Amino acid sequence: MDKSAPRRITIVDVARHAQVSTTTVSKVLRNAYGASPAMRAKVRRSIDELGYRPSAAARGLRGQTYTIGVMLPELRNLFFADILDGITAQLAGTDYQVLLAPGCNGEKAEARVIEAMIDRSMDGLVLIAPVSAKSRLNTVARGVPTVVVGRHGPSTTYDTVTDDDVAGAALVVDHLADLGHRRIAHIEHHETDPVRLREMPNAQRANGYREAMRARGLGDEIDVASTTYTQQGGYLGAKALLARPVRPTAIFAGADVVALGALEALADAGLSVPGDISVAGYDNSALAAFGPISLTSVDQDGREMGANAARLLVDRIAERDRRTTHVKLTPTLVVRRTTAAI
Amino acid sequence: MDKSAPRRITIVDVARHAQVSTTTVSKVLRNAYGASPAMRAKVRRSIDELGYRPSAAARGLRGQTYTIGVMLPELRNLFFADILDGITAQLAGTDYQVLLAPGCNGEKAEARVIEAMIDRSMDGLVLIAPVSAKSRLNTVARGVPTVVVGRHGPSTTYDTVTDDDVAGAALVVDHLADLGHRRIAHIEHHETDPVRLREMPNAQRANGYREAMRARGLGDEIDVASTTYTQQGGYLGAKALLARPVRPTAIFAGADVVALGALEALADAGLSVPGDISVAGYDNSALAAFGPISLTSVDQDGREMGANAARLLVDRIAERDRRTTHVKLTPTLVVRRTTAAI
Repeated sequence: MDKSAPRRITIVDVARHAQVSTTTVSKVLRNAYGASPAMRAKVRRSIDELGYRPSAAARGLRGQTYTIGVMLPELRNLFFADILDGITAQLAGTDYQVLLAPGCNGEKAEARVIEAMIDRSMDGLVLIAPVSAKSRLNTVARGVPTVVVGRHGPSTTYDTVTDDDVAGAALVVDHLADLGHRRIAHIEHHETDPVRLREMPNAQRANGYREAMRARGLGDEIDVASTTYTQQGGYLGAKALLARPVRPTAIFAGADVVALGALEALADAGLSVPGDISVAGYDNSALAAFGPISLTSVDQDGREMGANAARLLVDRIAERDRRTTHVKLTPTLVVRRTTAAI
Repeated sequence: MDKSAPRRITIVDVARHAQVSTTTVSKVLRNAYGASPAMRAKVRRSIDELGYRPSAAARGLRGQTYTIGVMLPELRNLFFADILDGITAQLAGTDYQVLLAPGCNGEKAEARVIEAMIDRSMDGLVLIAPVSAKSRLNTVARGVPTVVVGRHGPSTTYDTVTDDDVAGAALVVDHLADLGHRRIAHIEHHETDPVRLREMPNAQRANGYREAMRARGLGDEIDVASTTYTQQGGYLGAKALLARPVRPTAIFAGADVVALGALEALADAGLSVPGDISVAGYDNSALAAFGPISLTSVDQDGREMGANAARLLVDRIAERDRRTTHVKLTPTLVVRRTTAAI
């Protein structure tokens, strides 16, 4: 490995070894349509045997860097790790490398990170739950193939992959109402921007909660604490709900991290879950499944979302002006130990 | 923002506006020595007012991409988020952008990710707990300024930032022994490679555990389950320990995620913590502090580790052939509710 390198293996060598055309090799490298699974396997074997790796320079000349930038709102929400697993699984066996940019917590930081990724010539972007203005997202997507995950469309410039958040919220409300709960409160992520109120998953969950409450004849019991989708936000939200004249018998937290904060506040208040109060989350993250927590939660299948996003992005890199696609996945409810009959 | 852009602001405009030399502006952009805090503030104000952003092309010509690649072993260990916070906090106010590459779980994947980052012309690399062969790390570091976090040195090609893992393990053993425990077991991350047995934090913790047990006259009670530093590894490790003829009264898990898996196994077995068995972790991650878990854990101050790594890396980018520095931080023990007197 430390010896001086032999002549660099090229795409021509791979094509010769696999006895296919260089166009076919190129298709396999880009994971594009038009190469059969058998053909892909054959080319992959030759690539592995020869140790072929497209040079950065050669890729640059073709105008591709084989780099996909993924923007995450934060690293501490484990649901994002599920999305990322789906992205990397879908890209396995291609030459695309995923690079993440973390640490966004608002429009300004987000703009900086997106610019940084464009600036570094990424072939495409996956933006997870971006909060930027719609016009900004459209500008970005006109310049670089972009898939938006978690934030609802429509858009004619970027593809979207979302969960049906309204249906997900209804799953929780129906489950709790079926258990006999009436005073079902919700902790939402505060939102005021009119576009975001239509498009952001948090806003759709809050709407879905209100709709489902009314559909169950519980319109008068609607009770919302407006904080943030963080553990701290869940803690403060639950504290606020407990301080109100009529205490809820169940709390629907808009995300699992929020539910964790709520569980912490309830423990501090000496209340038992689900004895005194039921709690449900959203995301079915690894934490929800963790035995000692065992949180009832909505599963929006992050891996599937990530796999769809990667597939759409690679397609768009190959064909930049195709019509946009909007994938909406149907969530399911995973009932665990934090919810019980009243 | 959608209007066609005006003439691009250059470093000359910034220098003129701030009434300093272009060399000073350049120093501030690189966060190099030789610019006073007042001077930095002045230049930063001009940069913000003018909306200056160095163009990728201009940076390419100077041979810098202002991109720092951080390789994480995985995304689900929340301790890495602390390290990352430290890195980004240290780089705030500079033009460096951090990009993460995730999903390594072995030498092969790690080699691929490191190559991908080098291939994309990153100015420097932060490798968190890499498992690659030492010769490989040296080769990488000879090509690109590199700081290794978590894995102990020495090295003459890269800087390291570590925790004193031997001392950290001793803090746990002493705490448990002071509480009257004698049968203190350890769940380690399995390791066989002789270099990694010297350098990896997991191996040093296991050594520290053995040393501290002997120092307390508990050499005969040494009992190790060898799995992996994952939640699943903790689960299996605790199961294995419970199945042994003599059950431990305390378990020292080598990482918080491992402790979580152990807690899950103990709950499954109907054992109470700390009533039947005490559990301690390592990392003092957000999960350890989470109220309902409240895990006794060793704090190795990930933010401080990250800040040190970023500082060393920026220094090395500025002066590539300076002598290597090895920072070793002293851990502390945070006692919570999972450990108690026997």
